[in-house]
Amino acid sequence: MPPALPLPTIDDVRAAAARLRGHAHRTSVLRSATADARTGASLFFKCENLQRMGAFKFRGAFNAIAKLDPAQRRAGVVAFSSGNHAQAIALAARELGSTAVIVMPADAPAAKLAATRGYDAEVIPYDRLRESREAIAQRLADERGLTLIPPFDHDDVIAGQATAALELFEDVGELDALFVPLGGGGLLSGSLLAAEAVSPLCAVFGVEPAAGDDGRQSLRRGEIVTIGIPDTIADGAMTRHLGERTFPIIRRLARDVVTVDDAQLVDAMRFFAERMKIVVEPTGCLGAAGAFAAANDWQGRRVGVILSGGNVDLARYAAWLAGA
Amino acid sequence: MPPALPLPTIDDVRAAAARLRGHAHRTSVLRSATADARTGASLFFKCENLQRMGAFKFRGAFNAIAKLDPAQRRAGVVAFSSGNHAQAIALAARELGSTAVIVMPADAPAAKLAATRGYDAEVIPYDRLRESREAIAQRLADERGLTLIPPFDHDDVIAGQATAALELFEDVGELDALFVPLGGGGLLSGSLLAAEAVSPLCAVFGVEPAAGDDGRQSLRRGEIVTIGIPDTIADGAMTRHLGERTFPIIRRLARDVVTVDDAQLVDAMRFFAERMKIVVEPTGCLGAAGAFAAANDWQGRRVGVILSGGNVDLARYAAWLAGA
Repeated sequence: MPPALPLPTIDDVRAAAARLRGHAHRTSVLRSATADARTGASLFFKCENLQRMGAFKFRGAFNAIAKLDPAQRRAGVVAFSSGNHAQAIALAARELGSTAVIVMPADAPAAKLAATRGYDAEVIPYDRLRESREAIAQRLADERGLTLIPPFDHDDVIAGQATAALELFEDVGELDALFVPLGGGGLLSGSLLAAEAVSPLCAVFGVEPAAGDDGRQSLRRGEIVTIGIPDTIADGAMTRHLGERTFPIIRRLARDVVTVDDAQLVDAMRFFAERMKIVVEPTGCLGAAGAFAAANDWQGRRVGVILSGGNVDLARYAAWLAGA
Repeated sequence: MPPALPLPTIDDVRAAAARLRGHAHRTSVLRSATADARTGASLFFKCENLQRMGAFKFRGAFNAIAKLDPAQRRAGVVAFSSGNHAQAIALAARELGSTAVIVMPADAPAAKLAATRGYDAEVIPYDRLRESREAIAQRLADERGLTLIPPFDHDDVIAGQATAALELFEDVGELDALFVPLGGGGLLSGSLLAAEAVSPLCAVFGVEPAAGDDGRQSLRRGEIVTIGIPDTIADGAMTRHLGERTFPIIRRLARDVVTVDDAQLVDAMRFFAERMKIVVEPTGCLGAAGAFAAANDWQGRRVGVILSGGNVDLARYAAWLAGA
């Protein structure tokens, strides 16, 4: 889409919230006296790891499919993803009486293929080294009349993701700061739209892996910077660049983009398991690790954190907890 | 206390709920489409693993200390426990301006000793093979004028634990069945009092480790049966017998006591981590494992499960998740 099109607004976010009612969980906001004592701030954790299919991605996927007209919905949707977007599209399509085709790497973990098929999606495996998933998805869209739903660079996806932060502000009131995981920018740009409307003094930060700081670079340069595939355990933030729709919102409204390394993510994962009794995936820990690192700046202040997801391979998760 | 004393009632439970307001978390009730699909029932998980200090025990400890008169509270309290009751008493005492002395085995895990001291309690270590913790606690009570707060066999503790089930019924309405972890019976007897008053047709089950089925035996025989220390990973249910105050309530109101083995607890732990993104300790999984095993009897019905706690040693937890 050309950037000249008007960007999504809080009205789109509120409309998405109305569509999601009764379909997405209104996830818990957890507190932790231990986290507050360690940081000196009052922390509010919005638990999208407890969302349906285990991540905020359900919100954007559902909103995008719900907005299709009946003929489009009947024809079905297509997405390419090896991660949470795949399961989000599959579940949302089933829930809305549509059908989903997901283009996934043939060597994706068996558990992920099975989970996606478990939501009744048709999985089209492709060879990561020889084929382009974008091209395959586009060909499927053309041949079968499917609607392609991208993982972040789409106004309805952005408006859907925004509802997580909107709920957080509704539940706990205005905040001084909000730390949000940053990959392609769907969750961050949505959170920014929500904050601008209902907690306008809140400083909103994107947090990305140090190994993949394209968001930070893009903010500094004032244009979208593309990097190589980052080497990080935050597999949901291995995006190479922000989107044409997400970047303008981030540029206009984000206080800053900060980075954390994998060791900080593992520390956060262990903290959540040990002290808060919740499973958060590495990407889901980005916001929290950013907030913990920035605690000195927010003494005595009210700080929100979005925990974006909890989908982990149990064996890898066990190894992180064990300190391996 | 002689059994002739009137047992606690729903009025005591409601009074406890009023005392706990603003101090205990009103914990989340989580749903899982996957759990519903697997069991054929509609399951409601009351997440006391998300309670303060990580277990329902905070409720009973807080209620008992809150009911002390000012002089008793000033003098302080004493408890013996190597588990969640220790941290519950320590945290509740601090919160209420009292002080706590906890008698703990000298060989308790360093993490547990540290956590209890972290709540400002004085820890008195004892030699498990040569000394009686009851005798030490009683001597401390006598010498220092402390009030001894037992882990389950105490009316104020029972009334406090009851507030978890009361909240569950308030939040989701009446249920057809409720599965509750059973050790000494504080949580089960409290849950029974709540169910009798606000969901009187609900069949309430205690679930205990197969290796320690004293509750089941006691129900069959109509009297409290004492067993040897059970060999189970459910360390919060290694009690050897029910209490003089908990047994009469359980006998009068429980539909039955059922048992599960350690393998079922590990399966449940893995399910909660993988699908529901929450950390539940082995004892905390008793109710869930019981409900999963009994699913055939509750097709299409509304079934509550109390997840009683989430305090696990991370290394052991990691090994369970890894399937070791």
